[in-house]
Amino acid sequence: MRVAVVVYPGFDELDAVAPYEVLRTAAVAGANLETVLVSRDRAARVAGAHGLIVEPQGTLESGSFDVVIVPGGGWNDRAAAGAYSEARRGELPAALRELHEAGATLASVCTGAMLVSAAGLSRGRPSTTHQLALEELREAGSEVIDARVVDDGDLVSCGGVTAGIDLALWLVERSWGTELAEVVARTIEHERRGPVWTRERSRHD
Amino acid sequence: MRVAVVVYPGFDELDAVAPYEVLRTAAVAGANLETVLVSRDRAARVAGAHGLIVEPQGTLESGSFDVVIVPGGGWNDRAAAGAYSEARRGELPAALRELHEAGATLASVCTGAMLVSAAGLSRGRPSTTHQLALEELREAGSEVIDARVVDDGDLVSCGGVTAGIDLALWLVERSWGTELAEVVARTIEHERRGPVWTRERSRHD
Repeated sequence: MRVAVVVYPGFDELDAVAPYEVLRTAAVAGANLETVLVSRDRAARVAGAHGLIVEPQGTLESGSFDVVIVPGGGWNDRAAAGAYSEARRGELPAALRELHEAGATLASVCTGAMLVSAAGLSRGRPSTTHQLALEELREAGSEVIDARVVDDGDLVSCGGVTAGIDLALWLVERSWGTELAEVVARTIEHERRGPVWTRERSRHD
Repeated sequence: MRVAVVVYPGFDELDAVAPYEVLRTAAVAGANLETVLVSRDRAARVAGAHGLIVEPQGTLESGSFDVVIVPGGGWNDRAAAGAYSEARRGELPAALRELHEAGATLASVCTGAMLVSAAGLSRGRPSTTHQLALEELREAGSEVIDARVVDDGDLVSCGGVTAGIDLALWLVERSWGTELAEVVARTIEHERRGPVWTRERSRHD
């Protein structure tokens, strides 16, 4: 499985780095999984919302990805660089739409969900986002679910910032099982938090 | 308050980025606090244990710091680059000792505690580290405490990886109060985990 964590100017650092580390740790623990940090363009360096500068390891267009992790950042404060700005520009949402059409699962962290929404992909679909953006996500036509992680198959989303840890652990669990996810959680000394919503589980409610 | 998050080849990415983001978020929420990512030497780029490349914003020698956050990484697996290698080389521990002598509080995350130990600073002092390094920390002469965060004044330490979130929130709480720490925790949608050990609290046990 190939996973891209996409970064763009003003991305929230922890939204991106937490899933990146969880997935890289899962690979060390035995998951057949490659995780790379990518930018949409060929930017050699990308500055996050809190000023951290990272160097992407590739581009979103450079390969085929099974899963694309979409961090948020700069949405709630309408930052000049960030998810809000990217949603208005439209190029990143268009790229996400293409990846989704090509078969990739999109997994958004925090207000990364608003980029998936801007791509027109979450209308009528269950999803979630940072607490301060839930109303906007609902107004944009998504069926907002009260859960920390929402798995709707090819669209996965979660709450704000640290929920990205639980989203990544869920991605590990759904592909490699609970035991491996627990190994990773113990390694990073994280107590997993839910609930994780899935269509299957909601049918049993 | 000036805080340095020190990175070195093979540092654990989440150990460093999580406290960095918590402290930057606290500044936005009102704490009079400046947080910078620094390297010990003048490295323009530093690769972490999981391959993430970051660009430091300064050097450890470039200013006076009230608090120095020391991430771990690559200790338990004796990685060629990481905390184990840095402890053997000795330059980073020496720099930490100088900073401590100059009045800085050292706050270690995960096996960053082994670098503080290598600096000779935690002998006879309460501290903690990643679960897999606890025995080594004890053998090195530290009084290992069973707590997620251990605050011994000018030496603060915590458990593995995600414990760095709780350590940084504790640093916010001890300087600016519980309310601001809770604001930050809510912003990043984190449920704080303890216990936090302090000398004051241990006297009341």
